[in-house]
Amino acid sequence: MASRSKAAAAKPQNAFYAQSGGVTAVINASACGVIETARKYPKKIGKVYAGRNGILGALSEELIDTSKESAATIAGLRSTPSGAFGSCRYKLRSLEENRREYERLIEVFRAHDIGYFFYNGGGDSQDTAHKVSQIGKRMGYPITCIGIPKTVDNDLPYTDTCPGFGSVAKYVAVATKEAALDVASMCETSTKVFILEVMGRHAGWIAAASCLAQEEPGDAPHIVLLPEVNFDEKKFLARVKTVVEKCGYCVIVVSEGAHYADGRFVADAGGKDAFGHTQLGGVAPVIANMVKAKHGYKYHWAVADYLQRAGRHIASGTDVKQAYAVGEAAVKFAIAGKNAIMPTIVRTSDAPYRWKIGEVALSKVANVEKPMPKKYISKDGYGITPAGRRYLAPLIQGEDYPAYKAGMPKYVRLKNILVGKKLPEFEIL
Amino acid sequence: MASRSKAAAAKPQNAFYAQSGGVTAVINASACGVIETARKYPKKIGKVYAGRNGILGALSEELIDTSKESAATIAGLRSTPSGAFGSCRYKLRSLEENRREYERLIEVFRAHDIGYFFYNGGGDSQDTAHKVSQIGKRMGYPITCIGIPKTVDNDLPYTDTCPGFGSVAKYVAVATKEAALDVASMCETSTKVFILEVMGRHAGWIAAASCLAQEEPGDAPHIVLLPEVNFDEKKFLARVKTVVEKCGYCVIVVSEGAHYADGRFVADAGGKDAFGHTQLGGVAPVIANMVKAKHGYKYHWAVADYLQRAGRHIASGTDVKQAYAVGEAAVKFAIAGKNAIMPTIVRTSDAPYRWKIGEVALSKVANVEKPMPKKYISKDGYGITPAGRRYLAPLIQGEDYPAYKAGMPKYVRLKNILVGKKLPEFEIL
Repeated sequence: MASRSKAAAAKPQNAFYAQSGGVTAVINASACGVIETARKYPKKIGKVYAGRNGILGALSEELIDTSKESAATIAGLRSTPSGAFGSCRYKLRSLEENRREYERLIEVFRAHDIGYFFYNGGGDSQDTAHKVSQIGKRMGYPITCIGIPKTVDNDLPYTDTCPGFGSVAKYVAVATKEAALDVASMCETSTKVFILEVMGRHAGWIAAASCLAQEEPGDAPHIVLLPEVNFDEKKFLARVKTVVEKCGYCVIVVSEGAHYADGRFVADAGGKDAFGHTQLGGVAPVIANMVKAKHGYKYHWAVADYLQRAGRHIASGTDVKQAYAVGEAAVKFAIAGKNAIMPTIVRTSDAPYRWKIGEVALSKVANVEKPMPKKYISKDGYGITPAGRRYLAPLIQGEDYPAYKAGMPKYVRLKNILVGKKLPEFEIL
Repeated sequence: MASRSKAAAAKPQNAFYAQSGGVTAVINASACGVIETARKYPKKIGKVYAGRNGILGALSEELIDTSKESAATIAGLRSTPSGAFGSCRYKLRSLEENRREYERLIEVFRAHDIGYFFYNGGGDSQDTAHKVSQIGKRMGYPITCIGIPKTVDNDLPYTDTCPGFGSVAKYVAVATKEAALDVASMCETSTKVFILEVMGRHAGWIAAASCLAQEEPGDAPHIVLLPEVNFDEKKFLARVKTVVEKCGYCVIVVSEGAHYADGRFVADAGGKDAFGHTQLGGVAPVIANMVKAKHGYKYHWAVADYLQRAGRHIASGTDVKQAYAVGEAAVKFAIAGKNAIMPTIVRTSDAPYRWKIGEVALSKVANVEKPMPKKYISKDGYGITPAGRRYLAPLIQGEDYPAYKAGMPKYVRLKNILVGKKLPEFEIL
């Protein structure tokens, strides 16, 4: 067992990197930052192993040997969406409840001489990274645990933004603008109301970002339905009518988490389909039917779903840079002997947008959700304030196009070769 | 009244340009081609007037004076999606049924010294352009009528493809690839079936284009549901199971027009549009529920709707070039004294893709729908053949990014200044 202070020892310890939770357009850019940076310090970090399907790969001892991938392939991760090593939704709860799993992690790390744990995810993952750092110490196998922020939900505290959010924000703003132009040009004789459903179960960050499509008064989106504001059907329908009568059409962006004052999701009001199944998902068609029933307006609706968080072709250049930077910083922090922290994005200026890398203790980040500040939501609840715009606008700046071949983006495909197992099977419960 | 043979006359006749039907990511590129080319021949063509909201603008004498727009703004049309002058779904039927409207058109043309009519649309519009050329002659006001092809449906005959289709094809192929990477990286513990609903009421061209996301065997989309193939629920559900068991996940692309053997649409949103077509929407959730009920797989679904046809940010470079070229050719044909024709795209080579501009008589194009050839559909009905791929692949080649400002595409906004009216009001029935 080596500690960071013995960095000069002949054989440096290996690192373990895992992707966690819903993937994004830029989580692989963070992976790229981790691997490329680790490769620059071969005396400090041996191999970078990646968990096959995230933390499950550590539990099942399915470790991907990233050293088998060429420099060009690793560089290609920077512009490849999704989770190249696989991700998972698997939450390690308290040490008491999941002691067996935490101990298994440490056993696997010990068996493969892993001294660094980089966990790329949201709040749950930062909590796990924090707990691993604690139990490692207690089990006599101290491990350097660095969290790497990632979530399209933008709900991590202490960081200006979360890598992944800027790109989904840009996708949604661009999609809103383009669809609105389409509707505007046909509204006299065709569709008058267009509804775009976007992600965001608890927070309206993504829906709010659609407001970046507005350049002039009257521009779409005309109504944004946020989970932060209780849905008031009567008020909403009155507003739709006002907008259609004034602008000729109405573009609505609705967060999947939009809900009534009593907490019921608007999506659940959809009832049952022709087969008698409850309609799961799909707040957009519910809103559309509501508008049609009240006003009779012709409508269209879209549900962006995974397209928005996987849309690497329209990623935010700022987001890609930040995603890479937090991966790079994680490795540099580890090498510098830091532990149980997460790199953060620190905003130093709104316009021009300037940012630098900071750090926060995992104990502070773990399981804390950052809500969208009320001061970002307009008084009527259907849009954002100038303060909200100042915050959001820089996050979508810059384009970072992938390379194309024959008209399609060139996304890399890894070999994902597993390291030989050294331990007995472990049953994941 | 001047005829084309008097081109040397002091004051050249004006032109009328109108956009028709569903707009696309590149119909404005055709407008750009028309206006820029006309501006190069001031001795042949006076002003280019554009119909406000398409042909309705001619009937209501709402003519937009495009000469009021700067060269830079007109150039910007090349990369601005939607219909910059407004479009409409308004079909002029037979001369017998709509004689009043046809005669009004000629009156408006005569009042504004319009000698050229450029009609940018699909099959219905080509039919209208053809009829206008006939009635003009009969009414002693011969007018040069040139159709300009446009439709995301790719269903015009005599042309290799229709401007608008290549871009929606690229959008759908890229979206399918990106979403599939997302699903693949999470399928072990999360979503196993993803369904993307795309446009295509009668023909499966758009859904078929998603197959361009396939690079290697096993790649998504695994199942494409085309309107050309009767939907067989049992066979489909069995295939979903086979794919999930083999690949770990299953990506399905479904055309809005997918239907059972008896003609019933798999999803039918009810209502009919101005053309009497049933308005569709929401086949994706129906398919999703079907899969869930039978297999219990976790699913997600997306409905691209207008996002796909307005997605100028990911337009096909080939499509943009062709859209501009048919606009340019229309004006050159008119100046050369040709009449009642439509420029076409003629493919001279598959790989490398080579094409040139051809022409076809409007009488031949009018109201003829080109179906997707059976030889392009794979034997099992769930994908395309190598011949289909050879046809489709070149159409998405090349990128043609709009300029960006502050992270958003710079799409132009026209002033759309109307010419003074000279005629009494006309009631549009």
